[in-house]
Amino acid sequence: MKLADFATQLTDAAKTVDKVMLDLFGEKTLPGEILRPARVTDSMTYAALAGGKRLRPFLVIETAKLFGKEGEGVLRAAAAIECVHCYSLVHDDLPAMDNDDMRRGKPTTHKKYDEATAILAGDALLTYAFDILADEPTSADPLVRVSLVKTLARASGLGGMVGGQLLDLEAEGRFHPDGKPLQLDDKQILRLQAMKTGALLMAGVDMGAIIGGASKAEREQLGRYGRALGQAFQIADDLLDEEADAATVGKATGKDAAMGKGTLVRLWGKDAARKRLGDLVHEAEGALEGFGEKAATLREAARFVANRDR
Amino acid sequence: MKLADFATQLTDAAKTVDKVMLDLFGEKTLPGEILRPARVTDSMTYAALAGGKRLRPFLVIETAKLFGKEGEGVLRAAAAIECVHCYSLVHDDLPAMDNDDMRRGKPTTHKKYDEATAILAGDALLTYAFDILADEPTSADPLVRVSLVKTLARASGLGGMVGGQLLDLEAEGRFHPDGKPLQLDDKQILRLQAMKTGALLMAGVDMGAIIGGASKAEREQLGRYGRALGQAFQIADDLLDEEADAATVGKATGKDAAMGKGTLVRLWGKDAARKRLGDLVHEAEGALEGFGEKAATLREAARFVANRDR
Repeated sequence: MKLADFATQLTDAAKTVDKVMLDLFGEKTLPGEILRPARVTDSMTYAALAGGKRLRPFLVIETAKLFGKEGEGVLRAAAAIECVHCYSLVHDDLPAMDNDDMRRGKPTTHKKYDEATAILAGDALLTYAFDILADEPTSADPLVRVSLVKTLARASGLGGMVGGQLLDLEAEGRFHPDGKPLQLDDKQILRLQAMKTGALLMAGVDMGAIIGGASKAEREQLGRYGRALGQAFQIADDLLDEEADAATVGKATGKDAAMGKGTLVRLWGKDAARKRLGDLVHEAEGALEGFGEKAATLREAARFVANRDR
Repeated sequence: MKLADFATQLTDAAKTVDKVMLDLFGEKTLPGEILRPARVTDSMTYAALAGGKRLRPFLVIETAKLFGKEGEGVLRAAAAIECVHCYSLVHDDLPAMDNDDMRRGKPTTHKKYDEATAILAGDALLTYAFDILADEPTSADPLVRVSLVKTLARASGLGGMVGGQLLDLEAEGRFHPDGKPLQLDDKQILRLQAMKTGALLMAGVDMGAIIGGASKAEREQLGRYGRALGQAFQIADDLLDEEADAATVGKATGKDAAMGKGTLVRLWGKDAARKRLGDLVHEAEGALEGFGEKAATLREAARFVANRDR
């Protein structure tokens, strides 16, 4: 498969996931709900449908496909993880956090609406993700549904994404009286990144495996793929931050440097970082051994993540 | 049972739930977690263990008892709903929302720490609630676990608690150019309150029923109890807001009036509100018919909610 084909596949999946999210947000009310205020669904929709790559849902979809599983349940799980990703962007962009006015070339949710609405839109997206997973149409098997909930909650909570965001603010020196950035070593940076970004990417792979009915051994094997892909994603991000100009990426870049933030690229140098990126792609591909041709797209995904230009 | 005995029961349950929450927050890491940063667990603990009445967990525990169910699973479900309640307080107190500096006589989480930490502590509490419910020790039956997740998510999400908080801000005139409070009629106020407060109280009852193995008919019957109790809770709250002084309640009162907010007490008058409160207690008690002596504490809970002085 060529990279062009892959890009088309990714875009097509993104469109499908967008449609599923729109439908889910557009439900009038579900049993047990009282009313969905328009301002909540509008701001959730604004926050969630802002044109991301939809990489996490793509991982759910493609991993489930390894086991021949497709359709509504998979797409709901894919939408759920994207809800969590999008909530995290909304909250991270808040003035009290990273204070970003623009995201993907558009005003951030608190700029478009206001801070209170953005906080609530984020809370609603996070909560709805678990509703989607727990509801019957996701899987007839309650064990599958509850496993999806657990995987997503654990990856995105205090010991994963939320904890990682806190460590990131801490690394900027935010909670220290003198406000100086911490000097993290590469182990600490890797851990921070594994929590902040890696955990949710891994969860995408694991959720696809769960809904596909993977065995424990298969889940572990695919976990190695997810871990390598997650690391590759973050190193590529650090390289982009060093290299790309603001126009291409659509958000402020060079920001990490401005904050004196330690990145692996800065610690190791660009060449060593690129070398490590290659090793990680190799590792990711290796973890897919035994899945044969079916895993071609996931292999491509690892290369895409490593070589993306935004 | 006398009110004194009930108060003791409530306090004892609160202590037990506090202990369970402390243990859950104090776990080093669970499988799949990478690290729990101290600042996250500290702020979660600060936010969650600030001495509330623990009414929602109490409803879980007492409803489960109707079905002879007690122990770890029930207490975990009780802790989970309290995590959601506490997250909602942390986010509602934020400067961009209700901007409260004090809660239960102590600095609010963003005052004790900072806004970023408070946002993340809230996010972590919400996420952890679903992890707790989805994890095996809550119930051997995955259908019970996933039903708990669904009930809690739906009650606290866009069509429930989060939506209610947004409607409440909207009622204050927050999203209107002139900033004037909306004039809600009693139906609108009842709906707003049912979402903002009632839904989570009802969820407490329903979660107790689910974990107790209640039939569909029993869940519906107990749903009537939960709905009446939720309404009584809010009318009592409105009466307290009119009557109590800041010293007794431990937070700023008369605030609703200062904002020109419509409350049922103001629409109906105090006497009619008290009359309605009595009817609701009666309704709640009526919904417990058939459960006999076992439901004595839940009956007492309805009276307590209606007559509480804080």
